[in-house]
Amino acid sequence: MMTKIGVGICGIGTVGAGTFNLLQDNSAEIRRRTGQDIQIVRVGCRKDPEGCDVSGVPVSRDIFEVANDPAVDILVELIGGTETALELVKLAVSNGKHVITANKALMALHGAEIFELAAQYQVQVKFEAAIAGGIPIVKSLREGLAANKIHLVAGIINGTSNFILTEMAKAGNRNFAEVLEEAQALGYAEADPTFDVEGIDAAHKLTLLSSIAFGIPLHFDEVFTEGISSITPEDIEYARELGYQIKHLGITREMPGGVELRVHPTLVPATEMLAQVDGVMNAVLVQSDAAGVTVYYGAGAGAGPTASAVVADIIDVVRGSSGTTSLGFTADGLHEKTILSIEEVCCSHYLNLHVQDVPGVLASISTILGQNNISIEALIQKDARRGAAAIVILTNDVMEADLQNALMQISGLPHVENPIQHIRVESFDD
Amino acid sequence: MMTKIGVGICGIGTVGAGTFNLLQDNSAEIRRRTGQDIQIVRVGCRKDPEGCDVSGVPVSRDIFEVANDPAVDILVELIGGTETALELVKLAVSNGKHVITANKALMALHGAEIFELAAQYQVQVKFEAAIAGGIPIVKSLREGLAANKIHLVAGIINGTSNFILTEMAKAGNRNFAEVLEEAQALGYAEADPTFDVEGIDAAHKLTLLSSIAFGIPLHFDEVFTEGISSITPEDIEYARELGYQIKHLGITREMPGGVELRVHPTLVPATEMLAQVDGVMNAVLVQSDAAGVTVYYGAGAGAGPTASAVVADIIDVVRGSSGTTSLGFTADGLHEKTILSIEEVCCSHYLNLHVQDVPGVLASISTILGQNNISIEALIQKDARRGAAAIVILTNDVMEADLQNALMQISGLPHVENPIQHIRVESFDD
Repeated sequence: MMTKIGVGICGIGTVGAGTFNLLQDNSAEIRRRTGQDIQIVRVGCRKDPEGCDVSGVPVSRDIFEVANDPAVDILVELIGGTETALELVKLAVSNGKHVITANKALMALHGAEIFELAAQYQVQVKFEAAIAGGIPIVKSLREGLAANKIHLVAGIINGTSNFILTEMAKAGNRNFAEVLEEAQALGYAEADPTFDVEGIDAAHKLTLLSSIAFGIPLHFDEVFTEGISSITPEDIEYARELGYQIKHLGITREMPGGVELRVHPTLVPATEMLAQVDGVMNAVLVQSDAAGVTVYYGAGAGAGPTASAVVADIIDVVRGSSGTTSLGFTADGLHEKTILSIEEVCCSHYLNLHVQDVPGVLASISTILGQNNISIEALIQKDARRGAAAIVILTNDVMEADLQNALMQISGLPHVENPIQHIRVESFDD
Repeated sequence: MMTKIGVGICGIGTVGAGTFNLLQDNSAEIRRRTGQDIQIVRVGCRKDPEGCDVSGVPVSRDIFEVANDPAVDILVELIGGTETALELVKLAVSNGKHVITANKALMALHGAEIFELAAQYQVQVKFEAAIAGGIPIVKSLREGLAANKIHLVAGIINGTSNFILTEMAKAGNRNFAEVLEEAQALGYAEADPTFDVEGIDAAHKLTLLSSIAFGIPLHFDEVFTEGISSITPEDIEYARELGYQIKHLGITREMPGGVELRVHPTLVPATEMLAQVDGVMNAVLVQSDAAGVTVYYGAGAGAGPTASAVVADIIDVVRGSSGTTSLGFTADGLHEKTILSIEEVCCSHYLNLHVQDVPGVLASISTILGQNNISIEALIQKDARRGAAAIVILTNDVMEADLQNALMQISGLPHVENPIQHIRVESFDD
């Protein structure tokens, strides 16, 4: 006997239409996998739906009608934003409906409140689509690696930034602004690209990844976030000479003193898997005690991949895999941990100093580095142009506080141009 | 209130000890994730257990005692082999116990019988550890991509073969036999390496992947299997010149006429993700209609990664994700499909022909190819040594039957050495 499961979809934009179509197009396949009859019983959208044929399905202009419809067992929230979405999700949960969402901002900012409500009403809130589109990274961390202590999660989790860095690396001499314009023309970047290129979108996703990995509450406000707008073609070229690619990463790592939570451009060894991830593709690398390094790669956005994740969550609910909470930890299992500031992070750094080509400059710089316990692992001095030179340095692993201190002193030297470019360097494969 | 869940482990070799230790070492973490108290209540092993401290746990020399112990809720089968293992698993299932196994041969050969029994007794049989060690590929296919029609699965699923090919590619002039010896010395290859280097192990795993991807019964007997022992340093070098890496892949693809099921060395474009997978690492690439290309990378063997997968399966059972069958399809959802023979497979081919350097040889070869509707996409003629030359050809996509026909005719030419090397060529990223 097949049970009929009613799905209501709120928001019929690209992802909404993709979800609608996927549930229709693959219904036979999904029935083979679930033995259940999943039906879209109501759609809520403020504008006429585009990109899917909703004939035969009741359409509400008031999305809250979807959350109040008794035929809806599972509500899919794809309206975006955080205010109305929060209200909608809370209403759905309070009405005993499971909720699937692709809304990373909503989850990163209001997840705690939503999860508590979901526990109270004994429904599931799932958000696979919120992190890396078609890549089942939430499932992999929460279930596939559930036997492990996770040490680190590092991901290319924003396609726009990765597209821009990839294009800059390909072209050699096109700067950030030019490539951003191209990305906007291709539809890979928004008119206002701040959320993507300044790392806010990645910070939302990293917040969720960190909680799932380490079983800690959500701490979006404490994510250190640095975008890619200051990366120059010169940096990309020097990085390559040193054997690295520059990638915009979200990194969360558990250290003895607490948890690192940081989004920033990063030099990654060119031979590592994350360095191979080009264009709008995403990838997430996980280091854990038993499984070691695992990497998950795929499309991080787009109608198909995002709908794939949304519908996978629906199928999970329908199959009755009800034993897992949203974050994969029990209420008691969620432990508060200190979030480390960026000054407390220890890693290697790439420095690119533009200096006047006068005797003694390098000596002054290396003296200051030495005084701050920073040693030089590699150094390239680039040909002087009109009396100026670029000094590129890779440091050993140092505390960021020490590096900041050294950079402040170096920036006060008479022959050093400001600002000094510094980019963090990480290696993940072992 | 925590429930106590009893686990019995049969077989304390590397993986058994790893599983024992992981359940002990990460018990606090696992409790945070499950809210349940998972305890090892009995161990079955014929020799004294090594690599873990079993004191306090009853040890049975007769492994069947584990399957008959009422305190055992979940039996972990790690004894290997297929005869006793089958008997053990059937007894455990008949006694109402869930079964977790890492035994690919058992599952590929006897899965159908076991799954039927499991359905009858309403228990779960899970085998994440049987395919790619620490990579949660079964979960990703069966759950993470459950909304998709899968088109193709292609994997580097045997670490020994990948290690040998990687070393051969690194060294440049070391042949298969030399590198195999090194792999044996390092413990990466068995004394009798047949299962690994001739592709039988990969064929077991591919059989399972294919059933999970397409919802078809297990068809181990119909897997086309070709090993890596005929690959030469010359092939690796020529492939590189053409922009390819040689990888030993298991490939299963659904075509209009049926399902391909094949294990063989494959030229993969050097820029693709699978080409980056070196040493003993594994990776599985999936093409599906909604999510597009996704790739899963990690360690395919070893105590830690395999135990990670075994314990993840235990946690799944404990969390009560009981809605999913072993293959991810309902009994009715499993459909028989034709398995295509290798002659029916259409792909590009790499040919390496050693010929005597006399006029007209190339003309004769290209005439035969043309007569069989095979066109040449790339050709390298290598310098003659003592009157001999190597002709390396990349063909267009052709039916293997046509290629076999052409090769038979070419091998009859007076100035062509036998056998002619041919390796299939595939491209997966788009």
